[in-house]
Amino acid sequence: MIDLSLLPDGGIGWLDASGPKASIVLSTRIRLARNLEGHVFGQRAGDADRTAVLTRVSEAGAASDRLGGAVTFQLDQLERAERQLLHERHLVSKELAGLDRESRPRPGAALLLQGGVGVMVNEEDHLRLLGMRSGFALEEAYAEVEAVDADLGRLLPFAFHPEFGYLTSCPTNAGTGLRASVLIHLPGLVLTKEIGKVLQGLAQVGLTFRGLYGEGSEVVGNFFQLSNQTTLGKSEDELLDHLGKIVRQVIEYEEQAREILLQKAPTEVADKTWRAYGLLKYARSLSFEETMNLLSGVRLGVGLNLITGLSVYTLNKLLIFTQPAHLAALEGRHSGDPELPTVRATSVRRVLETEAV
Amino acid sequence: MIDLSLLPDGGIGWLDASGPKASIVLSTRIRLARNLEGHVFGQRAGDADRTAVLTRVSEAGAASDRLGGAVTFQLDQLERAERQLLHERHLVSKELAGLDRESRPRPGAALLLQGGVGVMVNEEDHLRLLGMRSGFALEEAYAEVEAVDADLGRLLPFAFHPEFGYLTSCPTNAGTGLRASVLIHLPGLVLTKEIGKVLQGLAQVGLTFRGLYGEGSEVVGNFFQLSNQTTLGKSEDELLDHLGKIVRQVIEYEEQAREILLQKAPTEVADKTWRAYGLLKYARSLSFEETMNLLSGVRLGVGLNLITGLSVYTLNKLLIFTQPAHLAALEGRHSGDPELPTVRATSVRRVLETEAV
Repeated sequence: MIDLSLLPDGGIGWLDASGPKASIVLSTRIRLARNLEGHVFGQRAGDADRTAVLTRVSEAGAASDRLGGAVTFQLDQLERAERQLLHERHLVSKELAGLDRESRPRPGAALLLQGGVGVMVNEEDHLRLLGMRSGFALEEAYAEVEAVDADLGRLLPFAFHPEFGYLTSCPTNAGTGLRASVLIHLPGLVLTKEIGKVLQGLAQVGLTFRGLYGEGSEVVGNFFQLSNQTTLGKSEDELLDHLGKIVRQVIEYEEQAREILLQKAPTEVADKTWRAYGLLKYARSLSFEETMNLLSGVRLGVGLNLITGLSVYTLNKLLIFTQPAHLAALEGRHSGDPELPTVRATSVRRVLETEAV
Repeated sequence: MIDLSLLPDGGIGWLDASGPKASIVLSTRIRLARNLEGHVFGQRAGDADRTAVLTRVSEAGAASDRLGGAVTFQLDQLERAERQLLHERHLVSKELAGLDRESRPRPGAALLLQGGVGVMVNEEDHLRLLGMRSGFALEEAYAEVEAVDADLGRLLPFAFHPEFGYLTSCPTNAGTGLRASVLIHLPGLVLTKEIGKVLQGLAQVGLTFRGLYGEGSEVVGNFFQLSNQTTLGKSEDELLDHLGKIVRQVIEYEEQAREILLQKAPTEVADKTWRAYGLLKYARSLSFEETMNLLSGVRLGVGLNLITGLSVYTLNKLLIFTQPAHLAALEGRHSGDPELPTVRATSVRRVLETEAV
């Protein structure tokens, strides 16, 4: 089993709740799509093309300032449980990790990881550079990933067109190749039933939302990933600036909604959040989905200062470590173990007992 | 406000969980219906008749060995909240206490109370002697009430027919005038879905079941009152013996059901009972009905030794003191106070914090 704790920050530095607005925004992620000139793009690339791309990226990484010490995970050489771990840390997509039923990772599928920056190799594009930061920190996350992009750009021939910008496998990503997203917790807007209106508004200004695990994943526990819809026709700064403005507005709406809840339904909110805490603390069997929903309730209570003595970092860690593959790895079980819900409840209880509420 | 705590045992000695099988059987109650010769029975009695009956019963009580020190509550002179308190302690019926909407207690409606024995005056019958005991204790409860019956019978002309026995307002109570009932907690049979069969069986052997508050009340929290259906044609001993046998069988079924649950679904049972505990301990708003259901879950856990350190007596007290009138009296509120659910949650939390689980 790969030992993620050996990585500089275990690959979850972005979850330490140290960033701005960390009680509402869990993390900020920047992704840049890049491809190599002279190599077949995307689905049309055969195994030989993919392996060649990985070799070039690895060599460039090793020679670069920013990725010189990166750990490389060749996904086709990892066990399913290990690939699932990486996916649960939001470091690789489900597709790259070959986690769909009866699928396997293809040759050349890899992840380079150093600190808060990762590079997925041979996903939809040859390279997908990832920058992850705690809280709401678009500029810092971008600066980090941009530095890696500049570094690699000096060593690799990125496919670039003077008119269209960076060329990508799917035209919706062309131009900057940039997708910026924030993982945001919006229980106030959900409880006040304002969330529908807000999400509709997002679509009108070119943003989109997804669930915790990205494209196609369901929204659970009131956790939303907000990101830009298009990447073409605007500069990186414009895209980030626009997303930043909108997210700031959504944060404001969420804060207003929480204020309203505290004023108009203080008992209901306190009751909801403390019940969630009571269940997490005493249940003997917890599904991951229920755990997410309960963590959502407790997080709201912590955000409103109704529950004190419990850190947001602890809640974030629970969100990561109660996922099936993480839990199984932590407790020495198979991720398909039917006793996982019991194991999860025990694990959650142990963590909560260390923090006096 | 009447101060029930001034009564010898606060009127809830039967709830101290000291009796046999107290974790399954909360209490045993014996009721004897008696009427006075020369006074109009039941509904046909006018206010003057009723007042005359009360005078005679009071005088006899004062002159008797067993009721010489009884406290008398004249229900028509009590506030609604006070009458509700007595009803919540199962000392007076809803009808006698005039608790139905827009009703008032009629003149002459009274309760004499001494230790574990009470006498309702001018309910459906002139006298209804009540004996209450903790746990499953038919003989002890009967012995107590029989002694009072003998005492009063020497001082009052009980209507008695050589062929039919004691005459009562409603013919279904004639003969012995005895109704024996046990308040029993059957979560095992409910969870294993065997309860329907058991209740059907009861009807076939002349027993009946009701909810926590007697006739017409719903079953909540898996608490059932089992009692004999008829009183005629059998001696007191036969009736008690029969009920005793059947209840022992029901207890056995319940114990078997719990055993099966522990063997076949240990996690589910532990989860159910601990979730109930977690909610009771942390909720900020609790209706009485939910409280009963949660107490039922916790009581099962205590009975199965899954939850230790929490006494059955505490659970019994919570069952009494979270009822609207008790809670209101305890906390200096009106029983219609809309904040009662919040007050209830605070009160439950305070009690649970004193017992280390």
